[in-house]
Amino acid sequence: MHPTRWGDPARATGLPDGARGLVELAFGVDEQVMATTPEAPLAPCALPAEVLDALRTAVGDEHVRTDDDVRRLRTRGKSTPDLLRARAGDLTDAPDAVVRPAGHHEVAAVLAVAVEHHVAVVPFGGGTAVTGGLVARREGYAGVVSLDLVRMKRLLAVDETSMTATLEPGLRGPEAEALLAEHGLTIGHFPQSFEHATIGGFAATRSSGQSSAGYGRFDALVVGLRVATPRGEVRLGSSPANAAGPDLRQLFLGSEGTFGVLTEVTVRVRRVPAVKEYEGWRWPDFAAGADAMRTLAQAGLAPTVLRLSDEHETSLNLADPDAVGSSDASGCLMIVGHEGDADLVAARRTAVAAVLEARGGTPLGTEPGERWAHGRFDAPYLRDALLDVGVVVETLETASFWSRRQELYDAVRGALVDALGDGAIVLCHVSHVYETGCSLYFTVAVKADAEDPFGQWQRAKTAACDAIADQGATITHHHAVGTDHKPWLTREIGELGGSVLRAVKRDLDPTRVLNPGVLVP
Amino acid sequence: MHPTRWGDPARATGLPDGARGLVELAFGVDEQVMATTPEAPLAPCALPAEVLDALRTAVGDEHVRTDDDVRRLRTRGKSTPDLLRARAGDLTDAPDAVVRPAGHHEVAAVLAVAVEHHVAVVPFGGGTAVTGGLVARREGYAGVVSLDLVRMKRLLAVDETSMTATLEPGLRGPEAEALLAEHGLTIGHFPQSFEHATIGGFAATRSSGQSSAGYGRFDALVVGLRVATPRGEVRLGSSPANAAGPDLRQLFLGSEGTFGVLTEVTVRVRRVPAVKEYEGWRWPDFAAGADAMRTLAQAGLAPTVLRLSDEHETSLNLADPDAVGSSDASGCLMIVGHEGDADLVAARRTAVAAVLEARGGTPLGTEPGERWAHGRFDAPYLRDALLDVGVVVETLETASFWSRRQELYDAVRGALVDALGDGAIVLCHVSHVYETGCSLYFTVAVKADAEDPFGQWQRAKTAACDAIADQGATITHHHAVGTDHKPWLTREIGELGGSVLRAVKRDLDPTRVLNPGVLVP
Repeated sequence: MHPTRWGDPARATGLPDGARGLVELAFGVDEQVMATTPEAPLAPCALPAEVLDALRTAVGDEHVRTDDDVRRLRTRGKSTPDLLRARAGDLTDAPDAVVRPAGHHEVAAVLAVAVEHHVAVVPFGGGTAVTGGLVARREGYAGVVSLDLVRMKRLLAVDETSMTATLEPGLRGPEAEALLAEHGLTIGHFPQSFEHATIGGFAATRSSGQSSAGYGRFDALVVGLRVATPRGEVRLGSSPANAAGPDLRQLFLGSEGTFGVLTEVTVRVRRVPAVKEYEGWRWPDFAAGADAMRTLAQAGLAPTVLRLSDEHETSLNLADPDAVGSSDASGCLMIVGHEGDADLVAARRTAVAAVLEARGGTPLGTEPGERWAHGRFDAPYLRDALLDVGVVVETLETASFWSRRQELYDAVRGALVDALGDGAIVLCHVSHVYETGCSLYFTVAVKADAEDPFGQWQRAKTAACDAIADQGATITHHHAVGTDHKPWLTREIGELGGSVLRAVKRDLDPTRVLNPGVLVP
Repeated sequence: MHPTRWGDPARATGLPDGARGLVELAFGVDEQVMATTPEAPLAPCALPAEVLDALRTAVGDEHVRTDDDVRRLRTRGKSTPDLLRARAGDLTDAPDAVVRPAGHHEVAAVLAVAVEHHVAVVPFGGGTAVTGGLVARREGYAGVVSLDLVRMKRLLAVDETSMTATLEPGLRGPEAEALLAEHGLTIGHFPQSFEHATIGGFAATRSSGQSSAGYGRFDALVVGLRVATPRGEVRLGSSPANAAGPDLRQLFLGSEGTFGVLTEVTVRVRRVPAVKEYEGWRWPDFAAGADAMRTLAQAGLAPTVLRLSDEHETSLNLADPDAVGSSDASGCLMIVGHEGDADLVAARRTAVAAVLEARGGTPLGTEPGERWAHGRFDAPYLRDALLDVGVVVETLETASFWSRRQELYDAVRGALVDALGDGAIVLCHVSHVYETGCSLYFTVAVKADAEDPFGQWQRAKTAACDAIADQGATITHHHAVGTDHKPWLTREIGELGGSVLRAVKRDLDPTRVLNPGVLVP
């Protein structure tokens, strides 16, 4: 992906007509106010010839790339600040070289070169990071190498008895699903970044997908890992669960490439569902809908997809003239999706509907559900179109326990509105539920400060993160820590928690070549 | 509990008539061949007066006990080797003092004294450890203190919205359940040690209970922890799940008191089920029953209790003249338990029965289920009665993926039979199932080697552990590592995995006062 935009250029879109009217109404902006600065040449590759030669020995000449075009495509991730900086022509975080190992042993060979020459190594999968996890510290290093896992795309093993599959980290979501589909299997992990993000990234960042209520978070699906570290290999996964001390898998999951490079990931898989049905429900308010979600989760009746928009998000979604029920955009929209065999789906649908009706929900039929499913991966394209017309759009998310949900919502929403002013649009939805709590996912749109849109967002993000930390909630439910969330991590895990992360880092990566500056406090 | 026997002396039993006949038939043993050596006086308390004074300052004079009676009751755990050594009069592992803190801050104060005077600290809950986790290394320390959590028995918080409860670590299973029952709640964690084991021990050893199929392993129920370490306090649990780096809760779960003392544990709770129904099913063989279990787990239909005995365990269980169907002890007995609201239980029971019948199971009605439920915590009493008549009984367990189950079973059973000879009885059951795999729990009974019953068992245990490690399975599914499993841990988590545990240990407990010699390779 190009550093200035999301995804496949062929799928980039102008602002849809429905959104154009809303944007003009809300922000009064003009078209194409935020142009993209022409691409500046990158700084020359800083790596000495001997390092490049050593890397070429490790992975083959053609897989060590230092040309600007390739380096540019491996610069930063896809947060709105990332896009804003790229649009402003700032690609100063470009890696010095892009190195493409073909498997575990070549990854290990690259790490050996990195240790010998003190080169920073940034594991790179789909480039969809949104919290600065692809921006390594450069000072004190001979250079920065993007460890591009694009050649590690094999399905290494399928165990249809145990219902597990072992995958290489460079497989993008659709690639992994296509390989598994040949066996009639699916992982069931569909985050918004699904079309570009990779298996390694899902594991390294503890990703959670839109079907998490039914399939589980990605980290909860992982039963085995193979990791290349500067000190050697780690293989974990003797069993689904055990009592053989701390679960070290849980130390590498979420480690964002700072403890090692995940070279094989073994996950639980399911049969491809025969039936997928998504439907809409309306709730009088956010609290009533959230209570219904809680009831389902605690009764063991969580459907495959369960998502609830607050009043603000609902009014924007349902105000789309193409949408059903546009004459009534009140209340809160819930999306309920069931996947599985026809019998199971029918039974679950009946049981879930009984709970939702009993708690005051109004069924809206399948149209809102199908509409959500149709556009489920498109929001980042819309963000580009909005940036083009001078509207800054960004998201942030957190999670807490059910009893803390309302207060957390009020605090984060209040912080964003205070920071961005009354003209800002702040939307929220719940898209991940647990028996004991849920996530809150906020989307913000604001007319760009022409002078400093980057600073404008950073102030709002800081206020929201402070509010989250004050509430004792998590600084991130599924976006990871990267560099952006580091200032708040210690408030969540404590000084000693940070000390433990540093101790593990020192042990596995004593010269700190792996993604320096990311995650570890 | 006394170091020579399990549980409540009032519930100790002679050998039941049914078992007596079997034992005589199988082993030809006499009654009371294994007498207990009269208790020898303990070695005097090694701790200097200044250390005892400092401990008294930390927890109060009356809570620092050095009398033999108290120290004797805090010696080792309840493995058969532990009992054999105690029966032989060997209480050399008795702690020098038993210290009883009243809460987190007193635990921290004891740890400060331990660091200052280099005293080994062994956290002690119910004393039911079966892998040597209560036997700390003594060499190089001023002495060994048993940190008895018996005064930390509060239910600190109940959140009926989030369905969580925060408990102190010294609560025994029935005590915790009684406090929660006042709110209509239950943890649903019922391991065989339930009547004596504690909340802290459940978490520190990653315990798994007989209802794990329905309620989950104990570690899977934990959402929050407070830990006292020599370097200070750690509090974890911002949310049910998150992406804020590695999940450090999973580092303290299973840490067996070597990284810190768990002073508060927040767990998911459920409503007390209105209905509990347990029934029996017969399978033509172990493989057919295990495949049915796998089908249930992978279909999301796991009942609350799911347990399958192999042909050997079935023939012994059903040969009991009191048992139903004693005229036919062939095949394999499965126990299927459903708990919940009446409607839910009825629906689940129907759905599960349909799968089991379709796969060739024969329903035996509720009698075998009720019989199992009635005796579910009694096996350790029977073990004492068998030891009394010279039969060594012990258990060991492992877990792996479904595709490895049969080979693992054959290997471990073969190793035990080879090591103990044809006269040994080796039984096995599956009692914990996952979508991707299951546990295997072996029970062994053999006529005691009059000269060296301890060595007799150790040779068999070593052979079984070697077989488990050769199979790539876990050295322990729910008994923890302690000292007994340490020789095999590195084969499971690798040299680097061991190195990571040492790094965390160095960071949190730099002078190694916490349970030295346990767990960490």
